[in-house]
Amino acid sequence: MPHSVTRLDQGRPVAPTRGTLRPLGISEVRITDGFWADRQDINARTLIEHCEQWIARSGWVDNFDAAREGRMPGAHTGREFADSDVYKLLEAMAWEIGRSGDQGMNARFEALVDRIEPVQEPDGYLNTYFGRPGQASRYSDLEWGHELYCYGHLLQAAVARGRTTGEDRFVEIARRAADHVCAVFGAGGIERVCGHPEIEVALVEFARYTGDDKYLEQARLFVERRGHHTLADIEFGRAYFQDETPLRDTAVMAGHAVRALYLAAGGVDLAVETDDRELLEALRRQLGETVARRTYLTGGMGAHHEGESFGQDHELPADRSYSESCAGVGSVMVNFRLLLATGEAEYADLIERTLYNVVAGSPNETGTAFFYTNTLHQRVRGEVPPENELSPRASSSLRAPWFEVSCCPTNVARTFASLGSYLATTSADGLQIHQYAGASIAADLDAGPVAVQVETRYPDDGLVRVSVTQTVDSEWEIGLRVPGWADTGATLRVNDSAAEPVGPGAVPVRRRFAVGDTIELALPIAPRFTAPDPRIDAVRGSLAVEAGPIVYCLESPDLPGGLDVDAVRLDASAPPTLGTDGITVALVPQSFDDGAWPYRTTDGSLPGGTAGAAFAAALIPYHRRANRGPATMRVWMPCE
Amino acid sequence: MPHSVTRLDQGRPVAPTRGTLRPLGISEVRITDGFWADRQDINARTLIEHCEQWIARSGWVDNFDAAREGRMPGAHTGREFADSDVYKLLEAMAWEIGRSGDQGMNARFEALVDRIEPVQEPDGYLNTYFGRPGQASRYSDLEWGHELYCYGHLLQAAVARGRTTGEDRFVEIARRAADHVCAVFGAGGIERVCGHPEIEVALVEFARYTGDDKYLEQARLFVERRGHHTLADIEFGRAYFQDETPLRDTAVMAGHAVRALYLAAGGVDLAVETDDRELLEALRRQLGETVARRTYLTGGMGAHHEGESFGQDHELPADRSYSESCAGVGSVMVNFRLLLATGEAEYADLIERTLYNVVAGSPNETGTAFFYTNTLHQRVRGEVPPENELSPRASSSLRAPWFEVSCCPTNVARTFASLGSYLATTSADGLQIHQYAGASIAADLDAGPVAVQVETRYPDDGLVRVSVTQTVDSEWEIGLRVPGWADTGATLRVNDSAAEPVGPGAVPVRRRFAVGDTIELALPIAPRFTAPDPRIDAVRGSLAVEAGPIVYCLESPDLPGGLDVDAVRLDASAPPTLGTDGITVALVPQSFDDGAWPYRTTDGSLPGGTAGAAFAAALIPYHRRANRGPATMRVWMPCE
Repeated sequence: MPHSVTRLDQGRPVAPTRGTLRPLGISEVRITDGFWADRQDINARTLIEHCEQWIARSGWVDNFDAAREGRMPGAHTGREFADSDVYKLLEAMAWEIGRSGDQGMNARFEALVDRIEPVQEPDGYLNTYFGRPGQASRYSDLEWGHELYCYGHLLQAAVARGRTTGEDRFVEIARRAADHVCAVFGAGGIERVCGHPEIEVALVEFARYTGDDKYLEQARLFVERRGHHTLADIEFGRAYFQDETPLRDTAVMAGHAVRALYLAAGGVDLAVETDDRELLEALRRQLGETVARRTYLTGGMGAHHEGESFGQDHELPADRSYSESCAGVGSVMVNFRLLLATGEAEYADLIERTLYNVVAGSPNETGTAFFYTNTLHQRVRGEVPPENELSPRASSSLRAPWFEVSCCPTNVARTFASLGSYLATTSADGLQIHQYAGASIAADLDAGPVAVQVETRYPDDGLVRVSVTQTVDSEWEIGLRVPGWADTGATLRVNDSAAEPVGPGAVPVRRRFAVGDTIELALPIAPRFTAPDPRIDAVRGSLAVEAGPIVYCLESPDLPGGLDVDAVRLDASAPPTLGTDGITVALVPQSFDDGAWPYRTTDGSLPGGTAGAAFAAALIPYHRRANRGPATMRVWMPCE
Repeated sequence: MPHSVTRLDQGRPVAPTRGTLRPLGISEVRITDGFWADRQDINARTLIEHCEQWIARSGWVDNFDAAREGRMPGAHTGREFADSDVYKLLEAMAWEIGRSGDQGMNARFEALVDRIEPVQEPDGYLNTYFGRPGQASRYSDLEWGHELYCYGHLLQAAVARGRTTGEDRFVEIARRAADHVCAVFGAGGIERVCGHPEIEVALVEFARYTGDDKYLEQARLFVERRGHHTLADIEFGRAYFQDETPLRDTAVMAGHAVRALYLAAGGVDLAVETDDRELLEALRRQLGETVARRTYLTGGMGAHHEGESFGQDHELPADRSYSESCAGVGSVMVNFRLLLATGEAEYADLIERTLYNVVAGSPNETGTAFFYTNTLHQRVRGEVPPENELSPRASSSLRAPWFEVSCCPTNVARTFASLGSYLATTSADGLQIHQYAGASIAADLDAGPVAVQVETRYPDDGLVRVSVTQTVDSEWEIGLRVPGWADTGATLRVNDSAAEPVGPGAVPVRRRFAVGDTIELALPIAPRFTAPDPRIDAVRGSLAVEAGPIVYCLESPDLPGGLDVDAVRLDASAPPTLGTDGITVALVPQSFDDGAWPYRTTDGSLPGGTAGAAFAAALIPYHRRANRGPATMRVWMPCE
C-alpha cells in the first residue's frame, strides 16, 4: 500500500510512496546534543557560510550575472559544472532554513535565486556554460558537459525548498528545467544520458514531490538507456560513467564511485516507485558485492585516483584510497534508500560507519576546510594546501578550504543539514531508531502520534536510553539497531527488567508503551582489533583498531622522537586498551637496512626490520586526523 | 681527457666527449644470436613496419601533408604530440638502416622526410598542431603542447641518421629546428621550458654530433630553468613535469616517470659535457634513491596510473604498477649514461633487469602488439583490446596493436635497433662487456683495434664464453660484469685455468691476450625466492621467483581447474625448482569465506583462507605473460 505523502512532508529528503519503512523528516527527528548535534551546529554557524563565501569568491555565482549580462563565454569561471555547487549550496541552505528557521539565511537564499532566475531560458534551459554565442552548444558534450547533472542538483535543491519552506519561485525554476529535460530527452528526443548520473535520483524525487509521474518516466528512460553505449568510449572506458553495462545487469559497482553511487540511488528510487523488483534485487546484489569486496574499513569507496573509481575486487590500497567524501555521501544515499525499501539493518550499519568515518572526517572541527579524498595511509607529511586559493588538487595532506572542483564541501553541508532524517524511520505501528544521537523523535503511527527522547553520549559511550514521551492506546513497536560490530556483549532492557543479551540486527520492543517507559541499549564499545579479508593484498599482515563505530588511526604526533608511522610494528599480542590517554596499543620501533636495491634473495623466510623496545602509543579517531599539522598516519598497522 | 669523436661515430646513440667508459656503436657491437638477436630480428622484420603502418593509418603522417596543403586545423588527427611518433619511427628506421643496411627501409625513410620537409617554416619552426590560422599559436601551451618535446625526438632521429648514414637533408631539417629553438628559447627569449622534458637530452647529443656548443648551452638553459615554476601549477602539481624543484636539488624522482627519466638522462649528459660534478652527483643520488625505494622488481618505474607518475617511497602496488614501457626505455637511457660516466656495474645491472623484464615484455613475440603499462598483478582476465582500432587506454589485459597515445611501440623499436651499443664499452686499454648475448664486439684501444666473440645461451644458461678474435701487442683488459643477483656461485676462468669464484661487479681480466684466448664466466641462474623490503606494504608477506636476470610470474593458464592466481598461496618451505616443465613452485589452493563485510574482529591473529592440498605449478618469465589469451597473473605470491 502506498504511503500517503503530504506535499510539505516534514522535510524528508527521500519520500518513497512505498517500501518497508517510511522516512521521518527533519521536523520530526531533531538532533539535540552530542556528536551529530555538534556537526549540525558547525554547519549552521560556519560551514554553510564558508561554502557561500568561497562559491562567491570563486565566481561561480557571478557566472549567472555574466550570463544574464551577455558577458559569456569570456566571463565564465570555474569548471563546466560550476552551477551545480551553487545548487548544492542552495539545497544545504534550504534544509538548514527548514531545520532552524534561520531568516538571515533565508534572505541569502532568495538573493541567490534572484541571480539564477533571469538566466533560465524561456524553454526552461538553464546553464551558464553552454548554449550562448561563443559557447559550446547545448548538450554537445554529454560525456563531460554535466548539464543534466547540474539540473539534478537544481531539482534536489528545489525538493528541499519545497519540503521545508513550500512551493515558491525556486521550485518553479526547477519545474521548468525538469519539463525542459522531459521535452528534450524524452522518447524521440536526444536518446542519450549524462556523463555524470544525478538527474535520475533527482527526477524520481521531483516526481514524488510534485506527484507528476512524467518525471518518474524520464528517470526511467535515463536509467534504462545507460549501459547501451550512448556515450563515447573514453580513456577510462565507458565503465567510468556506468555506460558499459545496463544497471540491472551490473554485478558490482565500477567506474567513478560517485557516479556509480548516485546512479544506484536513483535506481533504487525508480525500482521502488515502479515496483521493479528485478531492478531492486539487482541493486541489492550490486551493493552487497561492492560492500563485500570494494569497500574500505571506513565505509569509503573508490580505490583509484585515476578516474576517481572503484578498483577490482579486493583492490583496496590504503595509501591510494580515494574514498571521496562525496562517495561517502553517495553511499549513505544508496544505503538509506535500501533501508527504507527493505528494513534491513545492514544498510543502517554501513550508513553509520560511513557517516562517522568518511563524512564526519571531511570537514575540520570549525567547518572551514575539507578533505576531498580520504586516504587510509598518509606516507609523508606532505604539503599544506593553500589557505587563500582554490586547491588545484583533490588530494592534500591537510584539509583545504576550497577546491577548483569543490563538490565535497556542499555535499557535506547538505548531508549535515538533513541528517535528522537518517536517524529514524516509522511504519504502520512502529518507530525504528537506526542511528544513535541525543534526539527527539516524533512519528505518526496508524494509531496516532508517538514520540520518544533519545539520551546518549554515543559513540563515546555505548549506553543509549530511549524514553517514551508520547504514546497511543495500543501496542506499538520501538526497534533499535544493534550494529554488526556488536556481535557479542550488547544488552537491552526495558524499564526495570533485567538486561538481556541482544545480537546484531533490528531488535524490536513491542508493547503498549506508557509515557516514561524507557529502553536501555548497552553497546560494547571497548576497542578491538580488526583483520582484513586475506585477499586484500594491500593490507596483508596488518591489523586495525576500532571502538564502536569508530575507526582509529595511528598518527605521527603520537609517536615519540619524530618517528613516522611506517617505522613501527604493532604488537598484536597486546590488545588495544582504553585508559586515561584514550585508546593505546603496543608498538615496536623498527629499523631497516637501506640497501641499494629493495629486493633480496631469501630461502623462503620473510625478512623484517630490526625491532627496538616496545612502547605504548595512543590512537585517535580517524575522523580527527590531520588536526595537528602535517603528519604521517595509518589505519592498518603491520604486525609482522 | 676528452675522447676523440668522429662524426659518423660508428652508430653510437650516446657519444660523450668525456667519462670513464667510451661507448661502442652499433657497427662495433653486432648481436649475432640468442634472446636479443631474436628481438632485433623481429624489429627488422615486423615491428618497425607495424609502427609505420599504424602511424600512417592513424593519420599522423597525413598531418604533415595537411599542414603543407593548408588543411589545418580541421584535418589534424591524433594528439598534440603526434609528430613525435613519426620522428621516433624515423629514429628506429635510421638505426635499423645503419644496423642492417636495409635499402627498402631507407627508401621509406626518405619518403617520410619528403612529407616532413615542406612543413618546416623558414625560421625553422616545425609542428603540425600549432601556429597556423585557426590553430593555437606557437608556444602558447608549454605545459601540454609538447612542441619542444617533438623537436627533441626530431633531433634524436637526426643524430641516428647522421651517425649511421651521414649528414643529409633530414639532419639539416633538425639543425634548422635546433637553431630555431636556440633563437626563441635562448637567453632573453621565452625563458621557460617544455612540459615534457626530452629537448634537453636531444640538444646535448646534437651538440655532440655537430660539435656546436650552442646546443649544449641551450640544453643547459632548459635544465637550469626547470624547477623554478615557469610552468603553471596543474591538478597533478608541478612535480608532474619536474618543475617543482630544480634538478640539482631533487632528492628522488617524482612526478611523471618518463618525464623525470628523460630529464635525468639529459641532466647526466649536460653534467658530463660541462664537467658539472655537483649535478652529476645529484643525479647519481637521485637515481640511487629512486632505485632503492621507487622501483619495481622488474626495474619498472611509475607506481601511479594518475599522472603516470612515481609514488612515494615504498609505494609500489603490484596491481597498479604503471611501469610504462617508455619509462623502462628512459631508465635504460639514464643508467647507460651513468655507466659511461662512472663505469659502475650497478647501472648495467639495472639496464639488464629493465631490458629483460620491462622493455622485452612490451611487444608480443611477433612485434605486432604492445603493453604500454606493465602491471605486476593482473587481478581479472580483463578485456581484449581492439585489434583494428587505436586503443583509447594505456592499460590493457592483453597487448594492443596501437594506442591513441602510442609512444611505447616506437620507443621499443628505436631501443631494439640500437641495442648493440648498450652491450659493451671501451676505454684506453680495455673492453667492458656489460650485457651478455651472442655477439661480435670490436673496439679501438689506444694500442690498436681489438675484437672478441661472445657465445652464450644466456639468460637460458649461465655460461658466457668470450673469445679474443683480434688483439694488440700489449696488455689490455676485458671486463665482465657479474650481476648483483649473482652474489654466490659465479665463477670465471681464463683459457684452461681453474674456475675462480667471482662476486658482483665488474671483474677485469688483464693480460697480453692472444687470438683464441677465452674467458668463461659461469653465472648461477638456478631459480631463487626473492623477498621485498618490509616497507613495501603492497607485497607484504609475499615472495617472487627470479632466475638469473629474469623475473617469473604465475599465470592462470598454468593453474588447474580454472583456479585464479588470487586463490592460491605459495608454500615457501619448498624452494622453486627447475625441471622438465621449466620452473615450478609448490602452491596451496585457498578457499575464502565470502562474508557481507570483509573485515573481522580478531584477538590479534590474522585469519587466512582454508587451505587445500598442495600442488606443483609452472611459472613463466614475466616478459612472456599474456601470450595465451586473457589471464590472471601475479609476480608476488602470498605465502601466509
